[in-house]
Amino acid sequence: MDIEQSSLFREHHDYRWDEVTCLPYKEDGAAPFKAISRQVLFAEAQLGCELRYFEMDAGGYSTLERHEHMHAVMILRGHGLCLVGEDVRPVKPYDLVTIPSWTWHQFRATEGEPLGFLCMVNTLRDRPQLPDEQELAALQAKPAVAAFLAR
Amino acid sequence: MDIEQSSLFREHHDYRWDEVTCLPYKEDGAAPFKAISRQVLFAEAQLGCELRYFEMDAGGYSTLERHEHMHAVMILRGHGLCLVGEDVRPVKPYDLVTIPSWTWHQFRATEGEPLGFLCMVNTLRDRPQLPDEQELAALQAKPAVAAFLAR
Repeated sequence: MDIEQSSLFREHHDYRWDEVTCLPYKEDGAAPFKAISRQVLFAEAQLGCELRYFEMDAGGYSTLERHEHMHAVMILRGHGLCLVGEDVRPVKPYDLVTIPSWTWHQFRATEGEPLGFLCMVNTLRDRPQLPDEQELAALQAKPAVAAFLAR
Repeated sequence: MDIEQSSLFREHHDYRWDEVTCLPYKEDGAAPFKAISRQVLFAEAQLGCELRYFEMDAGGYSTLERHEHMHAVMILRGHGLCLVGEDVRPVKPYDLVTIPSWTWHQFRATEGEPLGFLCMVNTLRDRPQLPDEQELAALQAKPAVAAFLAR
């Protein structure tokens, strides 16, 4: 986004924003995910980071993945579950989630309603990795994680 | 904030967050402001930026100031008015406000309720400048801005 090309005031309307395009979650169709969209709210280079809004429909989920860069998340809409490492936690509006480097993570809209969250991320970042069979088995060894992934 | 020292999940409770200290708006008492607090939600160095939550009580206001670094703002709570440059606009929850470099700005909780907003900012940033008499007079030359500053 170029500051010269966007308005200084952009209004919110039902989890959409003026001048912000609602995009597919990922351009790459190879990673598994369901019923999730992406809106880039701020991405000016001088900030050093971006603020994005991701939203899942009821029953949707983000990709189970990890990467070197960290995520700083604030839930904005609805309730659901979040996996970070081996922890599965319920989340509600305005809760904060820190996803450290190389930590498996996934969000799931498990409560029959949309789940939306803000995600702050460094402008310079690496591509996510997906778990291989061995890594997935290791995650599933913990019953709470296995139950989360099976939802 | 050091990632080893904070929890990955921090719950929200009425515009306060687990493990987040509610701080004075500014340490420096020289700049004018009223009834406003600051909470730093994310400040890990590897993000390249910080996410802060500022909240004014009804009738409160932030400092009228400008600086080289930009602000990326999302209103989180309540209604009020925002000055950016020579524009005064009403703001409501989840509206986005971009404050470019060297642009005068101020938030005011004018609607008899608290006004709270998220502010994303580069970790490396310059100190704000306050308007001198001449700059203040230039701002007040526009009637809408003069009315805003007099509230």
